[in-house]
Formats: sequence, structure tokens, C-alpha cells
Amino acid sequence: MKTRAAVAFEAKKPLEIVEVDLEGPKAGEVLVEIKATGICHTDAYTLDGFDSEGIFPSILGHEGAGIIREIGPGVTSVKPGDHVIPLYTPECRQCKSCLSQKTNLCTAIRATQGKGVMPDGTSRFSHKGKPIYHYMGCSTFSNFTVLPEIAVAKIREDAPFDKSCYIGCGVTTGVGAVVNTAKVTPGSNVVVFGLGGIGLNVIQGAKMAGADKIIGVDVNDSKEEWGRRFGMTDFVNPKKITGDIVPHLVNLTDGGADYTFDCTGNTTVMRQALEACHRGWGTSIIIGVAEAGKEIATRPFQLVTGRNWRGTAFGGARGRTDVPKIVDWYMNGKIQIDPMITHTLKLEDINKGFDLMHEGKSIRSVVVF
Amino acid sequence: MKTRAAVAFEAKKPLEIVEVDLEGPKAGEVLVEIKATGICHTDAYTLDGFDSEGIFPSILGHEGAGIIREIGPGVTSVKPGDHVIPLYTPECRQCKSCLSQKTNLCTAIRATQGKGVMPDGTSRFSHKGKPIYHYMGCSTFSNFTVLPEIAVAKIREDAPFDKSCYIGCGVTTGVGAVVNTAKVTPGSNVVVFGLGGIGLNVIQGAKMAGADKIIGVDVNDSKEEWGRRFGMTDFVNPKKITGDIVPHLVNLTDGGADYTFDCTGNTTVMRQALEACHRGWGTSIIIGVAEAGKEIATRPFQLVTGRNWRGTAFGGARGRTDVPKIVDWYMNGKIQIDPMITHTLKLEDINKGFDLMHEGKSIRSVVVF
Repeated sequence: MKTRAAVAFEAKKPLEIVEVDLEGPKAGEVLVEIKATGICHTDAYTLDGFDSEGIFPSILGHEGAGIIREIGPGVTSVKPGDHVIPLYTPECRQCKSCLSQKTNLCTAIRATQGKGVMPDGTSRFSHKGKPIYHYMGCSTFSNFTVLPEIAVAKIREDAPFDKSCYIGCGVTTGVGAVVNTAKVTPGSNVVVFGLGGIGLNVIQGAKMAGADKIIGVDVNDSKEEWGRRFGMTDFVNPKKITGDIVPHLVNLTDGGADYTFDCTGNTTVMRQALEACHRGWGTSIIIGVAEAGKEIATRPFQLVTGRNWRGTAFGGARGRTDVPKIVDWYMNGKIQIDPMITHTLKLEDINKGFDLMHEGKSIRSVVVF
Repeated sequence: MKTRAAVAFEAKKPLEIVEVDLEGPKAGEVLVEIKATGICHTDAYTLDGFDSEGIFPSILGHEGAGIIREIGPGVTSVKPGDHVIPLYTPECRQCKSCLSQKTNLCTAIRATQGKGVMPDGTSRFSHKGKPIYHYMGCSTFSNFTVLPEIAVAKIREDAPFDKSCYIGCGVTTGVGAVVNTAKVTPGSNVVVFGLGGIGLNVIQGAKMAGADKIIGVDVNDSKEEWGRRFGMTDFVNPKKITGDIVPHLVNLTDGGADYTFDCTGNTTVMRQALEACHRGWGTSIIIGVAEAGKEIATRPFQLVTGRNWRGTAFGGARGRTDVPKIVDWYMNGKIQIDPMITHTLKLEDINKGFDLMHEGKSIRSVVVF
């Protein structure tokens, strides 16, 4: 079949809206009509050439929502008409990782996904006879895409696509880091470094989990209003305090935070986030993706005296199991998404969405098909 | 009163056996007759001048066992005749840390302990009219010593002092790191870096906890026999394998260890210990004390993909609550101590104990009064 898609023909060039060829689903695969997709920093990271493993030409996009239109042989868990969110972290429920019940990092299709192809080693997309690669196993910047059955979460049909698509990455990453990875408990003190989309979702996750004090840290004062809208109780601009940020935060939290979250990707901030934790039990969660080659460091004394250094990917969420729950939380009003969708665009304007993100003018831009 | 003690008059000099003056216990304090004390690397670290906060003249030693001989006003939890193990990590059961139920790092007397004095700000020891400082709140290299009531663990009276003293530091640090901090579960794969006394105690803790594979790593082949005696199932000498130790261990553990323990104090090894953990859930525990100024580092990707970096002090054990249990485990044969006590010395020969340690000829030397 033919489908309209925004293709990244090469790094550091705008996406091109073209009609591409799409093969139908093979065994264990499904065809999804994408109804809406968010534009995430990770898409920009790849498009801007920072990802040394980025593959071109490819169809980017990994934060979508849509409807199953066709299933391949052997598919049993979803059927045409089902509403789904594509999962860049699949959930096979069969591999060592899934069966461990200790991680969401399913390894079933990791190798081929990293190579931009489907589990059988080939791409379903092509343009003028040449293959176009898949991206993060999703390629949601296409009106239609093919995914493995284990890489779609079936969600309720009353959830609006142009909002629920954000659950495909940003919302789940932030809320999930709080709920699944840190397991924040009521009464906790929480510090969130970086108040972009992920940071705001961490804040609303912490609020939902009953945290007492939720401190947002950002060098941009305009983020304070955003933070407070989702439950932030205190705002700190590191540029506007006297002295180092770590003792300032330790003081604000009566000895250190119970939980801190790095949503910046800056390795210096990651260290501050660890060291602002309470002696004895404070846990710091790295969410942000660091520049290639950058390392985190601290004195081992920080860990020996009881701080825990951890990380999270896709909010520790098992996609098929936990994503539908987060959709419920949104539909039931336990978390908000609507105010975070600052821009809604047509596919033709997708490059504008990247511009808005680079200029810091959007929390989340969503493309609606 | 007068008591015989080994005094560290200054750094980098042998201890001197002299008679010192000891004031009796003040309110909330107890007088303990030390019957036996181990010689630990931490004593040597201070004596050798590596501890920038080391205070002289002082009476070192923090791994003792003895009998309460006198109690000060207000002491209610112990009485003369009780057998006790001094605690360099006390347990007041009143401070924020104790009440958190999330850490053993009681802060009740931390400030004064760090300054070498009792909680009232003065020392009980003196020599020729000049004060001698306490060390780690214990000073077990003295036949008699004074301790805060909250810094003694009452233990059963049938436990032999010359063995149970080792529970005052090394045994609890190693076994406790497994049981309290890592919470190793049956069937786990464990890697232990460094097979000195702490490493051997980690090994026997892991065995007690039901670990399947217990891999010991040491550059000294003579440690293999020691490790196997306490439950080690595999031995790796990093100098004798081809290539890097991390992939070697990941391969040995089918994807990485569930738990790794650094018992070396070497920050390069600490990184290897983290990176040898299984993706998704592996936890690395730092036990070893690093050189001043040394830092640990890794790529944040290691944490984002699910590895946990933690540390432990005194094996995460609450002294008054958990130390008596470990004495029971020893008396009931669940853990061994006797084979680790390689040398038993008189106080006059205490410097020989330091020599044996420096020469790598002892697992643990114990001084018996």
C-alpha cells in the first residue's frame, strides 16, 4: 500500500513529506493507522545527527496512537479496530527480562529494532524501490506503519488520539519513573531537575503518589508557572541562589531529598541530583539521556552513606500492561495531558514542530493525521 | 582508673603499650572490659596517616567484645556483667535516621564521635595528664573503655570473645551487606570483588542467603582456596583471563550478575562491579573504602538500562538489633568465623598484627586481653 510519511532522508536536513510504499504485516505483525504522534527530543537527537547509531533514510517518530487496520498470521492479542499505542519498548512476556518481573526492558526484538528493521531482518517501508528504515520500532511519522504484535498496547477507545499519543513516550517516562522505578511514597520530598515535558510529568506523578514537597529546579524562570500547574510546591533557579545548589536543596529538604530525578541529560546535574539526596536512603533516578561519551561521577562515600543511584527507561513501564493504566489515569483525571500539548500541527508542518522544540517554545507538539 | 592500652601517639609510628588513665562512665555511658579485639584495615588506614580526619594521640580499635563492668546514671538497657560488642555505628532508636527504618546510619552522636570525644565533648582517656582521644567511638585497643549506652550491642554470654569480636566490624559488614543492603535472594548470581576478610564474609552471607553462583574475583590465586571454604563456586583471577573482566563475568553469569560487591576500595574495580551487573536489575554494592579524593564514574546508560549503584556501611546493620542476631548465626553454625581468625596475639604484640595485615599474611588477627 501507499502511505504519506515524513521521511528523514539524511541527518541534519528537514523531513520530507512523501508518499512511501508499505508492505502489509507479516506473521506476528500488525498494520496501524497512526492518528496522532508527538514530536520528542529523541527524534530531534537522531535527526540532528547526535545519535551515532542513527540510520538513514528512515521514518522517525515513536510517540503515537492509532487504530489496528490489519493483522498478520498468528496475531491473537489485538484485532482490526483496536485502538493502540505503539511501544518502542515492547513486552513479549516470554524473554528472560520480561519473566524476571524486575525490569521492563524486554529483549525479544532488541537487536533488529536497533538496526532499523522488523524482527525478520527486513524493512516494510520503501521509497522509489529503495528501503526506508524503521525507527525505534515505531516510525509514527507515517500515516500507516507496521509493528510487531508485542509492540502495541491496546487502549480504551474513548481516549483522544491527539492527547493519548503523548503516553507513548513522555508521559509514561515521567510518571512511570515516579511510580514504577522510584516507587515514591506519600509524604516524600522530591526534587525534579529540568522542567521540560519529562520533568512536568515527574512532577504530576509525584503529586499523584502523594509527595509532600515537590521542588522543581530549572535555570529558566518561565518554567516556574508550568511546574506549579502540575503540583510543584517550590521552585529553585540555580542561577539565582547564593552558593552551590546541593547544600541549598539539602537545606530545603531537611537533610536531603527522598527522591531526586534528573530530566536534563546533563551529567553535572546528574551528580547534583545524587548528592542532594538524603543520607541513608535518598534515591536519585536518571531519566535524561546524556551526550555520547559523557560520564557521571561522584565520591563513593556518597553511596556508602546510603544514597542510591539508579536510572529508568520508558518509566520502568511494561508497555502492554502499564500503558493502558496510564491512559485510564488520564481519562479519570488523575493526571493531566491537555495543557502540555502546546501545539497541534498537520504532517506538512512537522518541521515547524522541531523548530518550536529547538526554540524552547513548546512543551509538546503533536502532529495529527 | 588505670588501664593498659595500645596508644597511637602519632601517625606512621608503632602503637605504644602504656598504662592510661580512664574516667568512669558519665550519664548514659558504660564502662566495658574489652576481652578481645580484632585489628581491621580501617585502624591501619588511620595509623598510616591516610585518614585526613585522623586524630592523635588516640586509642584505635573498633572491633571488640567484652563485659559491662559499670554503668553511668540513667543507663537502663544494659547492666554490669552483660556481654557486649561495641558499636562504631550506634543505634539510638530516636533520631530521624533510626526512626526512618530505612538506614542504620544513626546520627545521634556522629559529630562528637568524629572529633574523638564522648557525646559531652570530652575524652575519658588521658596519659600523663594529657587527653588521649577516642577512635570511632570505640577504642577497643584498651583493656577498659567507656562507651555511650547506645553504642553497645548486648550479646549472648556463651559466645567466645576472641571470635565474636570480629562481628563488631568485618563479619557484620560483609554478611550484612548481603542480608540487609542487597537483600540477596535464593537462586541469585553473585560476584564478589576482593577476597580479603570482607569478601569472604560476603561470600558466606551469599551462601547463607541461598545464592546459586558465587563468583570470587581476586588477583591473588591463593585466595581461591579461602573463597571456596566459605561457599564460593567460581574463581576468576583478572590477570589470567583473556580480555576485559566485565564481559568475562557477564558471560559467566548469563548476562550479568544479580548482585555484585566491591570489597577492594579500588574505584576502577567499583566501576567493573557495576558494569558486570545484569541489565534491567543488577545491583552493585560498594563496601570498600576508597582513597581520599578518588571518584567513581560510569556512563549514565549503565543506570538508565536498569543497573543500581549502592553502598553500605556496617553492613546496613542496626547495631543493637542486628548484631545479636549475627552472633546467633555464628553460634548456630549458619556462618563461620573461627577459620578466619588466623592469628591470636597478646596486646604486647599488636604491632605484629598490623605487620601481618600489611604483608597480606592474615585474614584477621585478634588481640586477646
